[in-house]
Amino acid sequence: MGSFSASLVDKPSRAFLIWFFSLSLLFHSSLGSKAKHYKWEVEYMYWSPDCIESVVMGINGEFPGPTIHAEVGDIVNVELTNKLHTEGVVIHWHGIRQFGTPWADGTASISQCAINPGETFHYRFTVDRAGTFFYHGHYGMQRSAGLYGSLIVYPPKGVREPFPYDGEFNLLLSDWWHASSHQQELSLSTKPFRWIGEPQTLLINGRGQFNCSLAALHSRPVQRQCKFRGNEQCAPQLLQVLPNKTYRLRVASTTALASLNLAIGHHKMEVVEADGNYVQPFYVNDLDIYSGESYSVLFKTDQDPSKNYWISVSVRGREPNTPQALTIINYKTTSASKLPASPPPVAPLWNDYNHSKSFTYQIRARMLPDYPNPPTTHHRRITLLNTQNYINGYTKWAINNISLSLPSTPYLGAIKHQLNGAYNHQSPPENYPEFYDVMQPPVNPNSTYGSGMYVFEFNTTVDVILQNANALAKNTSEIHPWHLHGHDFWVLGYGDGKFNPGKDEKKLNLKNPPLRNTAVIFPHGWTALRFVADNPGVWAFHCHIEPHLHMGMGVIFAEGVNRIKELNIPHEALTCGMTGRMFMNNNGHH
Amino acid sequence: MGSFSASLVDKPSRAFLIWFFSLSLLFHSSLGSKAKHYKWEVEYMYWSPDCIESVVMGINGEFPGPTIHAEVGDIVNVELTNKLHTEGVVIHWHGIRQFGTPWADGTASISQCAINPGETFHYRFTVDRAGTFFYHGHYGMQRSAGLYGSLIVYPPKGVREPFPYDGEFNLLLSDWWHASSHQQELSLSTKPFRWIGEPQTLLINGRGQFNCSLAALHSRPVQRQCKFRGNEQCAPQLLQVLPNKTYRLRVASTTALASLNLAIGHHKMEVVEADGNYVQPFYVNDLDIYSGESYSVLFKTDQDPSKNYWISVSVRGREPNTPQALTIINYKTTSASKLPASPPPVAPLWNDYNHSKSFTYQIRARMLPDYPNPPTTHHRRITLLNTQNYINGYTKWAINNISLSLPSTPYLGAIKHQLNGAYNHQSPPENYPEFYDVMQPPVNPNSTYGSGMYVFEFNTTVDVILQNANALAKNTSEIHPWHLHGHDFWVLGYGDGKFNPGKDEKKLNLKNPPLRNTAVIFPHGWTALRFVADNPGVWAFHCHIEPHLHMGMGVIFAEGVNRIKELNIPHEALTCGMTGRMFMNNNGHH
Repeated sequence: MGSFSASLVDKPSRAFLIWFFSLSLLFHSSLGSKAKHYKWEVEYMYWSPDCIESVVMGINGEFPGPTIHAEVGDIVNVELTNKLHTEGVVIHWHGIRQFGTPWADGTASISQCAINPGETFHYRFTVDRAGTFFYHGHYGMQRSAGLYGSLIVYPPKGVREPFPYDGEFNLLLSDWWHASSHQQELSLSTKPFRWIGEPQTLLINGRGQFNCSLAALHSRPVQRQCKFRGNEQCAPQLLQVLPNKTYRLRVASTTALASLNLAIGHHKMEVVEADGNYVQPFYVNDLDIYSGESYSVLFKTDQDPSKNYWISVSVRGREPNTPQALTIINYKTTSASKLPASPPPVAPLWNDYNHSKSFTYQIRARMLPDYPNPPTTHHRRITLLNTQNYINGYTKWAINNISLSLPSTPYLGAIKHQLNGAYNHQSPPENYPEFYDVMQPPVNPNSTYGSGMYVFEFNTTVDVILQNANALAKNTSEIHPWHLHGHDFWVLGYGDGKFNPGKDEKKLNLKNPPLRNTAVIFPHGWTALRFVADNPGVWAFHCHIEPHLHMGMGVIFAEGVNRIKELNIPHEALTCGMTGRMFMNNNGHH
Repeated sequence: MGSFSASLVDKPSRAFLIWFFSLSLLFHSSLGSKAKHYKWEVEYMYWSPDCIESVVMGINGEFPGPTIHAEVGDIVNVELTNKLHTEGVVIHWHGIRQFGTPWADGTASISQCAINPGETFHYRFTVDRAGTFFYHGHYGMQRSAGLYGSLIVYPPKGVREPFPYDGEFNLLLSDWWHASSHQQELSLSTKPFRWIGEPQTLLINGRGQFNCSLAALHSRPVQRQCKFRGNEQCAPQLLQVLPNKTYRLRVASTTALASLNLAIGHHKMEVVEADGNYVQPFYVNDLDIYSGESYSVLFKTDQDPSKNYWISVSVRGREPNTPQALTIINYKTTSASKLPASPPPVAPLWNDYNHSKSFTYQIRARMLPDYPNPPTTHHRRITLLNTQNYINGYTKWAINNISLSLPSTPYLGAIKHQLNGAYNHQSPPENYPEFYDVMQPPVNPNSTYGSGMYVFEFNTTVDVILQNANALAKNTSEIHPWHLHGHDFWVLGYGDGKFNPGKDEKKLNLKNPPLRNTAVIFPHGWTALRFVADNPGVWAFHCHIEPHLHMGMGVIFAEGVNRIKELNIPHEALTCGMTGRMFMNNNGHH
């Protein structure tokens, strides 16, 4: 916890000066970077995330997995042992760019082979900037099975954040189904398609309530009031605060599906961080957060200290069929068991997209001295049309009419060892047909599988236009939060309908676009991103909705291909597919 | 179907002569051996084995998997592609001895690495004798998930079985739970232990009825009468027969747990084959069959041809909580939809072990000219005490106080490449303490994990005494059907209580002991087996009850170790664990 009692708003200049002074310590303190070692075992366990016992994928007997606390410059070492009986496993470190360690990105079929049962894989990577991150499974739908946890990176010792606060809390948000992730995988890939439906429960730090409500008094339809003795796995974690302080609330969403809205009863929030990057502070009553995103907000405990207050998390962007997740801000000046008198904050209407856009559009980079301005122009632009399709009667998502089908050989190994045939060597299309009507269901809904990569020259600037479209059903277009591995991108702008290069390009924000690793496309809209291909590796870029990725909604970026060949990739990452066979056969018989 | 109308009983000498004549064709016809090719894809699918939809592991969209029909001398080639999302897979060819191809035995951690998702493995092996076999998953509890099918080997063309029949049917028996195999795996390996309970349904060729009965009229408690249109996945397969013929009924049990008893209403059965070996024919009213066993019986359609008759399958050896599985023998002279008037055959009482022993004890080899007599003496005897134990509070099964924990490197690869540390190099004990009281729960129930092997010199004769004991609970001792890979063994004898070398050895049957690959130990009893270690390889020997093996109830036999080093093992079988790393590291960087 920090020691400031002054808030940024009261004395911005003081806070800023302290931060600026601290920045100069960065280079000294980075000498003090240290290796942090973790030994983790992944296994299934019985757990009751929402008071209903389920089979949950946990780490070291915990759900969610242990929180990693690190400082900028630390080298994180995770020895991950797979204790599952028949399944492989990987862990992706969401938001960590993995400069120089693309093999540690934890994406099966892309950066490595899945770790076999009984085996241990060593992840080793540097955390190079402060922020709110998380980690999760990236194989099949193991994220949906509960394989996730938080990764918080603090500034180096002696360095302060550019905003003061007295204490902090971390909320990792997720959604939970009672059907197993295996059954969900099957439903999504069966013919005819079976949609998994809305989650049964929203979880805050892995805790929710399915069969009762903390706010039963206010619930419609009437629910049973939850009673906890306190040691239940589904009991909410209260946020205990002192009056008249400023707290940082870290919020990250690793939902499989749900777009969320978070609000604190009677407390405004000041948004200060998004995806590990500082944003120009702004105040909100409620915060939209999509899967793959993280935020920090500051809130002041300036309300009646004899009361407690709700934190509510609600579904956005899909007609909700899942109750709010709730926990309580407990002013230590009152009893922790005292429920707030007023009902929990009411979320904006699920389909009030104007509310969502208004929130998202106002996110701007905080123009600190180390903010990297985007290059003023791009070397290459690819436009990615998001459509829902059929392949041989299976329901799929496709990008420029190709539904991503991951190969059994990791791309990174296939490129390093120049193996032919590990993936489609033809690059996927850079654009979609001009006549395509994004407001209507596809005229020809048939698509094809593909595993091709977009290959970028090292250090070139790439613009990506994410173009949303109508799904298979009329008047339907969904929100898709796209997440890029290995990078932050600048979010240059958003718009409705089709991106029009001539008209829309001029309106892009090159002044203070926020850096992020996840950006949403709104229904029937577009989003423009820019990044520099400065990180040799193979990087997934995909919708962070787990069922959508499972149904093919992603693309593969390869950059600095010649440098990949020079990379020192642990052989243990490449024991499968054609890389595995190559090692086998080159080695001859013994 | 054969063309005989004469039965063995009517004209034994004629049948025998024909058979004997045919035998001489064997060597000629083996020149005509051919390769049989199969391309299989393993995947989960929605299926309703017992009229309740479940997630089932199928092959090429079928459950059970396709039946392999082959002739003696054929080379079976199965290209097995793993279409599961995150799980490895292997298939074991139960009863096939794999002479010269131990890498094709399909046992994860023993003969090969599990096949990764998206990859294809080529099984290639010779079927060298006629009989009723089957195949099944041998990784985690994938057999319980439904990964199994039949493998029928016929005599070479022109060669006849030593018993005539007019037609044949094949029944593959299994048991089914509504909880997923993943949840079962977790329950069995959680602390405190959760027993999976009795199966919900018994299946005949993958078909059973959970929510109704074919014999509702006779069922207590009352059940709903099943109605089928005929195309339901759970509709019973009728056995359509002509009057006054002799039929061969092949029966194999791939149950996860249940010991079974099969009976045909009003028809006697003549037992003629067990586990692919001919037995001295004998008549029974009902047939006990344990998991891992197969039988052929002959029955004559000599009953009233205007009626149909039940085939019933019931649970033995455990207090049953699962209804009988039923199907119908339909005399084509009457309507297939006509239910038998009388109730299905009533099985012997579940704990009438005398009935079971009487059946099992009377099985004798048929003394045909090619029957290999057992060596008259053994080079080595190991005694394997079966106990139920605890390890760190986990409930386990142990053999001589070691609970088998399979390593992540296949034994076969570790031996071939002489890798140290892949498994426990100390051999497990050859016996148990003399004072151990097999009639009482263990005095010290604590056990340990182990992965050591019993190593046998090539071509030596090994005797194994399987010694049952009391489980953790008082007055409890379970049936365990032990299955040996890579071999048949001679079953030399059975007894109650402790095997007493001085007294019991003399009573062993060296004259006509049946050859089998699976033999049962009865509660608190012993079973004596003999085999010749003539098949270089590493072979599992284990209780065929899937939960028991999962809980450690097995041992590993290695034989002809020096010859293993000369074996040509496909590298694809060894991409995991220390063998995988060896190939990786020997190969150096590219």
